[in-house]
Amino acid sequence: MKHLLSTKELSRDDALLLLDTAEDMARVDQQEVRRLPALRGITVVNLFYEDSTRTRISFEAAEKRLSADVINFAAKGSSVSKGESLKDTAQTLRAIGADAVVIRHPSTGAPQLLAERGWINTPILNAGDGMHEHPTQALLDAFTMRRRLHGVDGARGRDLDGVHVVIVGDILHSRVARSNVWLLTTLGARVTLVAPPTLLPADTSVWPAAITHDLDAALADAPDAVMLLRIQTERMHDAYFPNPREYARLWGLGEERFRALPGRTMVMHPGPMNRGLEIASVAADSPQSTVLEQVANGVSVRMAALYLLCSGPREGDER
Amino acid sequence: MKHLLSTKELSRDDALLLLDTAEDMARVDQQEVRRLPALRGITVVNLFYEDSTRTRISFEAAEKRLSADVINFAAKGSSVSKGESLKDTAQTLRAIGADAVVIRHPSTGAPQLLAERGWINTPILNAGDGMHEHPTQALLDAFTMRRRLHGVDGARGRDLDGVHVVIVGDILHSRVARSNVWLLTTLGARVTLVAPPTLLPADTSVWPAAITHDLDAALADAPDAVMLLRIQTERMHDAYFPNPREYARLWGLGEERFRALPGRTMVMHPGPMNRGLEIASVAADSPQSTVLEQVANGVSVRMAALYLLCSGPREGDER
Amino acid sequence: MKHLLSTKELSRDDALLLLDTAEDMARVDQQEVRRLPALRGITVVNLFYEDSTRTRISFEAAEKRLSADVINFAAKGSSVSKGESLKDTAQTLRAIGADAVVIRHPSTGAPQLLAERGWINTPILNAGDGMHEHPTQALLDAFTMRRRLHGVDGARGRDLDGVHVVIVGDILHSRVARSNVWLLTTLGARVTLVAPPTLLPADTSVWPAAITHDLDAALADAPDAVMLLRIQTERMHDAYFPNPREYARLWGLGEERFRALPGRTMVMHPGPMNRGLEIASVAADSPQSTVLEQVANGVSVRMAALYLLCSGPREGDER
Repeated sequence: MKHLLSTKELSRDDALLLLDTAEDMARVDQQEVRRLPALRGITVVNLFYEDSTRTRISFEAAEKRLSADVINFAAKGSSVSKGESLKDTAQTLRAIGADAVVIRHPSTGAPQLLAERGWINTPILNAGDGMHEHPTQALLDAFTMRRRLHGVDGARGRDLDGVHVVIVGDILHSRVARSNVWLLTTLGARVTLVAPPTLLPADTSVWPAAITHDLDAALADAPDAVMLLRIQTERMHDAYFPNPREYARLWGLGEERFRALPGRTMVMHPGPMNRGLEIASVAADSPQSTVLEQVANGVSVRMAALYLLCSGPREGDER
Repeated sequence: MKHLLSTKELSRDDALLLLDTAEDMARVDQQEVRRLPALRGITVVNLFYEDSTRTRISFEAAEKRLSADVINFAAKGSSVSKGESLKDTAQTLRAIGADAVVIRHPSTGAPQLLAERGWINTPILNAGDGMHEHPTQALLDAFTMRRRLHGVDGARGRDLDGVHVVIVGDILHSRVARSNVWLLTTLGARVTLVAPPTLLPADTSVWPAAITHDLDAALADAPDAVMLLRIQTERMHDAYFPNPREYARLWGLGEERFRALPGRTMVMHPGPMNRGLEIASVAADSPQSTVLEQVANGVSVRMAALYLLCSGPREGDER
Repeated sequence: MKHLLSTKELSRDDALLLLDTAEDMARVDQQEVRRLPALRGITVVNLFYEDSTRTRISFEAAEKRLSADVINFAAKGSSVSKGESLKDTAQTLRAIGADAVVIRHPSTGAPQLLAERGWINTPILNAGDGMHEHPTQALLDAFTMRRRLHGVDGARGRDLDGVHVVIVGDILHSRVARSNVWLLTTLGARVTLVAPPTLLPADTSVWPAAITHDLDAALADAPDAVMLLRIQTERMHDAYFPNPREYARLWGLGEERFRALPGRTMVMHPGPMNRGLEIASVAADSPQSTVLEQVANGVSVRMAALYLLCSGPREGDER
């Protein structure tokens, strides 16, 4: 691995390597001094073209626990607004001495462009690009499932063979859904996507997943996990969007639906939650909820990705 | 002490412990390397729901001198605007690995909520909540008075018994005034509040302070300190607010009033000052002014609070 | 040197000391751990009253490679908007414990004010003030020229005697042009300024440079370097500004003009570039282009300035 751009192109071996390394990282968190010297002297730039405090803070915590130097570059109000292209920004970061770039961008494929065009010769980590992918989110979800299914001490080396995951919500606009579908199927899981008809992508035939509009039917199968996607409330005024009451009734994990689930079904959400809309508080705060584990595991998974991509010799670095 | 939420509930012993510890911290500042290793490996999140560069920078300087890892979380433009509740934010910070949270919030009681609800199991430091409290400001004010009254070498262990402090300005909206009234009276001082009639709280009977609209009468008593509050100029267009000329004439520390003060009366201001409005430059820049000492002492007091709350074993931390 | 405020007042000896120290700093970049302990325990505040991500990040990278503690103070949304004066801000930074201040300000002379008025007793580094100066930009440009002309191993100790530099663009509003003119002439270079008639300052007679409106005539002299200034596209709607097509045709380094240059002529640009306007991509990406070297050298030059100003005993620091 030189970059972490998508889960679609992530091999099963690399996915397991990332998850197992994250197990090591999670153990660092138990120590008295929760810090590894692995990236001492390494400068990581968090290049965020979109606001995302949660993801930025998670990466920043991961970078600092690995002893990296962190530079936050919020593209808003920067040269970007002065017309600087991604190319020039990348070359600038390289010249300034960046050793790795974590990028969040509203355009699909921006991280790939960075990685492929040779503008900057460092590992690139995709922290979310447009409606395309958000690979560390999918990795932390898989990590969380594995630990719930096999226990903290039994997770290492396991894939998700035979696991059934139901993903519910605005699939059309969700990079979280995309990254999860690819990674989950690579790891052997079976995915069912549930969405209002207007919030499904047109090309569903190419997704390796079952697709339905009927949440109750999907849940009747007693899945191992149900993952509620966050509703972007700013999209709610669009014509194709159900009104919130209808959405909650048909596609939300309300109290009644939650109580009907088997006790072993995990309730997952990438956060931040719209309580009462896509998820009831009784579900969000139940022992079945993995919401906070997901956040905590996000730091471990991002430490793993940074560690695997940035430690070792800096090959090909002609600076 | 597990948190620092208010001065109203701060005991005399804890207040003196904080002030005496701040004396130790102020001495670190004299050393060649102005840094203590006390919080190495500890992550402090500065969670600011309101802009306040001065307070944020003061806490950040204090955290870095204690060798903590610092993560700044400006809630503007973050998930907060996406509808994340304080609860979810707190749980997220906990899951990410925050060991302490410094919070500034426009709503009264937000820090208390954080501390009491168990959403996050770390020390909470109130850096200003609504029109309620700003405890580190009051502590740095008391620290400054103590040092002026008893000298740098004689301050340790002293309270403010018998000291008379006049606080002038928009008492109604001032968390600085509130925190000072409680702490000063706990430490034995006597407080007189001076304000235009429309800028006094309705419930003045519950404050342990004398209250008047006549600044000259209050100053005629030759107080040990006169503290001018900052006028929020954005409030000046409100109907209940005196016009600026009238305010400066009746409640400002103009040149004439300043010259009439005894030479030992301290002139205090939490900053930033509106020179010519609540305070004349001749007063602000005089040897009687403690404005810059207050800023410098703010770092020492915040170091003390962080040190007392965050060092030692992390009890009850089940992570 | 106590401050770095302008190149106009920089002596030849100090300029060479800065450039030679930057050579040492550039070598740090080659090491396994790219970090010097020189400023350990030193707090540098980046006080930016204007957005400038590139310059801020370059200083931040330099500060971190010298092991300084960095506090970023973006004046937007801070007390500045609450009416705090530069004086009070400076005194606050001093009281908080700043050991050096890097300042960017929209007003000419703000860094000089800071340095001269004694509000803060630390080194001041000008990171760009109004239309006045941007000294570290000129130093990195000179450093880049010296290395191109004499090689990385032959640059040390050299000035720019006899070198001819053509600077093209909106001279009127350019602090980069001003700082370059002064530094280049101090180092023995000859400067030709090329601009549209409406974009030249009125007082050109006081600049030690030849001045013309004819870019082709200036380039016919086969200069050692041609430096294209960035066009502020937000100024393009002003009446005195040529329209973009006319600008590119008459004052841009288009492909034809670039191909006519000798192969040894450096093509320089402070970035970010408006490709197709003041510079064609074929020129920007050619081996003659020094654009990325300029960015990389910026970190070395800023390390040198910080090192020379901040290391050694803190004389006169009465804190």
